[in-house]
Amino acid sequence: MAESFEKAVSYACENDAQFREEIREWCAMASISQDSTHDNDVRRAAEWGANRLRRAGLAHVALLPSAGNPVIYGESLIAGPKKPTVLVYGHYDVQPALDQSDWESPAFEPVERGEYLYARGASDMKGQVVAVVGAAEAFLKTNGVIPINLKFLIEGEEENGSRNLRQVLRQQRELLACDYCLTNDLAMLSPTQPAITYGLRGGALVRLTVSGPDCDLHSGVYGGAIKNPIHALCELIAGMHDEGGRVMLPDFYNRVRQIDDDERIELAKLPMDEQYFLRATGAPALYGESGFTSYERTCVRPTVEITNVEISGSGGVSVVPASASAVILMRLVPDQDPEECYRSLTEYLQACGESAVRCDASYMAGGRAILVDREHSGIKAMHRALETTWGKDPAYVREGGSIAAVSLLQEELEAITVLAGFGLPDDNIHGANERLHLPTWRRGIEAMIRFFDDAGST
Amino acid sequence: MAESFEKAVSYACENDAQFREEIREWCAMASISQDSTHDNDVRRAAEWGANRLRRAGLAHVALLPSAGNPVIYGESLIAGPKKPTVLVYGHYDVQPALDQSDWESPAFEPVERGEYLYARGASDMKGQVVAVVGAAEAFLKTNGVIPINLKFLIEGEEENGSRNLRQVLRQQRELLACDYCLTNDLAMLSPTQPAITYGLRGGALVRLTVSGPDCDLHSGVYGGAIKNPIHALCELIAGMHDEGGRVMLPDFYNRVRQIDDDERIELAKLPMDEQYFLRATGAPALYGESGFTSYERTCVRPTVEITNVEISGSGGVSVVPASASAVILMRLVPDQDPEECYRSLTEYLQACGESAVRCDASYMAGGRAILVDREHSGIKAMHRALETTWGKDPAYVREGGSIAAVSLLQEELEAITVLAGFGLPDDNIHGANERLHLPTWRRGIEAMIRFFDDAGST
Repeated sequence: MAESFEKAVSYACENDAQFREEIREWCAMASISQDSTHDNDVRRAAEWGANRLRRAGLAHVALLPSAGNPVIYGESLIAGPKKPTVLVYGHYDVQPALDQSDWESPAFEPVERGEYLYARGASDMKGQVVAVVGAAEAFLKTNGVIPINLKFLIEGEEENGSRNLRQVLRQQRELLACDYCLTNDLAMLSPTQPAITYGLRGGALVRLTVSGPDCDLHSGVYGGAIKNPIHALCELIAGMHDEGGRVMLPDFYNRVRQIDDDERIELAKLPMDEQYFLRATGAPALYGESGFTSYERTCVRPTVEITNVEISGSGGVSVVPASASAVILMRLVPDQDPEECYRSLTEYLQACGESAVRCDASYMAGGRAILVDREHSGIKAMHRALETTWGKDPAYVREGGSIAAVSLLQEELEAITVLAGFGLPDDNIHGANERLHLPTWRRGIEAMIRFFDDAGST
Repeated sequence: MAESFEKAVSYACENDAQFREEIREWCAMASISQDSTHDNDVRRAAEWGANRLRRAGLAHVALLPSAGNPVIYGESLIAGPKKPTVLVYGHYDVQPALDQSDWESPAFEPVERGEYLYARGASDMKGQVVAVVGAAEAFLKTNGVIPINLKFLIEGEEENGSRNLRQVLRQQRELLACDYCLTNDLAMLSPTQPAITYGLRGGALVRLTVSGPDCDLHSGVYGGAIKNPIHALCELIAGMHDEGGRVMLPDFYNRVRQIDDDERIELAKLPMDEQYFLRATGAPALYGESGFTSYERTCVRPTVEITNVEISGSGGVSVVPASASAVILMRLVPDQDPEECYRSLTEYLQACGESAVRCDASYMAGGRAILVDREHSGIKAMHRALETTWGKDPAYVREGGSIAAVSLLQEELEAITVLAGFGLPDDNIHGANERLHLPTWRRGIEAMIRFFDDAGST
């Protein structure tokens, strides 16, 4: 093992310039899944990715069709039946780059400056995919075999809600069967502090509409005689939290799994302290559920956030609108159920007993929170790989956001996902001047080689 | 007097077809002041109006320039110095007709069907202007003199906030000097029930912005750690009224002039009862300040209405926005002062003591309420003219809306305005299929002839 590992690491070093050239080539394709005018770029990026898997020496490389963009598949299942089979999840689509004028160099003209490679998709996540494919190739080209059985599933709609991934997972359940999954669509805490994410919040998305008059009304002629839907909506929203920021929907906290003292102490050691949140948000003060730190509020406690408010009609300054609506995004933790939380909301609305307006809350989407057992063999292997590469134990992190694909892999393949990636917090992944820190990325390839080696030796 | 009156009425009858043709001609010009692509139509409509005043026999007809659309002026000051001088206010611009597909015949192709003339601007208010100009012409052409001194001021920006009228009134104060003003930019209660409006609410327009983080934030990563500006805005709005619909801004009601029992009894006789408001709004229930009827709530009591809410950024479903804002339109009654009411709002915001967000309330526009003394000689003359024409006392109405020009005439010329017009509530003046009820309009011309006759005989 030691010998094949060393050969693979050497291969990666020798091919560093080639791998970087590949990132630049792939990132030059504006594979923006949210914008259908880029469908051709998406298609080119999918084909480029499939060819890259073929060049790495993977077998059965194909573009799996979906109702949306195709999914790249490839495998190497020659490590033997006693070795674990790991499904590597990634995506080849990217965020839009609407803020072109804020970019120092064009978003889709990749360029290296100093220790960074600048391009839309460099960190999120074409560079990450090249790293893990490069690690697989390093074994295949030097040793003819990867120490574990690998399957690659690189989708093209992650930045558009992974809306067709469930269908692909269902249709290809046998093809995609695995012991566990791995994705590096994540960041470390800093160039010297690797991280493993073991928790993601779930979500429930609801649209609440309050309607009153049957058309927009003149606020002079009718203002005062009927309940303004905006007023009613604001009262409903205001009542969803108490003054301390606690959610007031009935039974909302019933199933919330309490965090134990050990985990609290460990999370408190992470660098996400109050100063971190003040700096990162620019808010005049922090605010949230009492009894919890800011970091706990964002990842181990559930929240109800209004993310949009809108009115019907054209929005003239003198109009009482026929209706007003809000987008409500609940962020959920284990063991909350999205549909139960939606019912908490509808019960709350009923209890408010508005009779002068009509309220309608419609459930749009939802998913459960993810919490991976840190004793899982895949997590243990990743821990050792990161620790050895950086000379430092990885931090164990819970994220406040969701990764739709991770929930889908859990639900459809019944597989946990090892979450560890080699981006950095200041990569600007959805903003202008997205970049990839090349020294961290290089160490990431080494860490992946170690992970394959370690996971295959147990 | 009786003889000149009869001749004038006969003249109007004989010229009925001609007057209707004039309305059709004028209404074919899409003089939409809110849409600069119609500047040419506005200019043509202004020139048409000036020519119409000339044809009526008025003197010194001119287009007075303004920073926006010109104002049509014309006069007949030969009734003698003992006769009152009345300034007739009107407008030649019209609302847009964006809902073209809802029109049974094109908005700017005027056509008569049954008792109605259909066209944008037919009721609001080119038909009304033709009526009052026709009444003046009827005297001039048959008797050589109108019984009172008349000045016409027909502006081109009423449907765009009368934004340049104050400047014109200031520059032309001597030219426009008068004993009182008259406008028929109003409706009767029904074809058999004439009305005089003696009250209009004032207003104060404020934009309230609540800002928190310095950019839009990911609701997963930061949701729960900071105060969401939408939540804060909704709490502030919810606190502006108590459960009974009473405004909770400090000192807001301090200067509100109480309505006396006689006026209450009289207003209660008007047909604007609870069923009227339910039908007109389509709301599931009525709602408003306790202790007052719906009609009182809309015209003798002040209100605070939120007419719009908006967030910063693109409104993605998973974003906590950097800021949220509301448009607040206060409708004010005598003797409230708009800027004092704005201060009530800012004091309220300070008392709320939000420290986790920043609040900014900016004053955008305002005007005082109008209440005309019903004993004024002009009102008395209009009362008699309407009573004689319809065989019925006119209803005395307070309107919940504002007419900017009436406030400006009060402030700049120190003149009250007699408010009585010959539209009807179902003329659809800002909607599709705007129409003018020709029998009511004909009687309106007769009533105006009577008014000139009566006002000149006192």
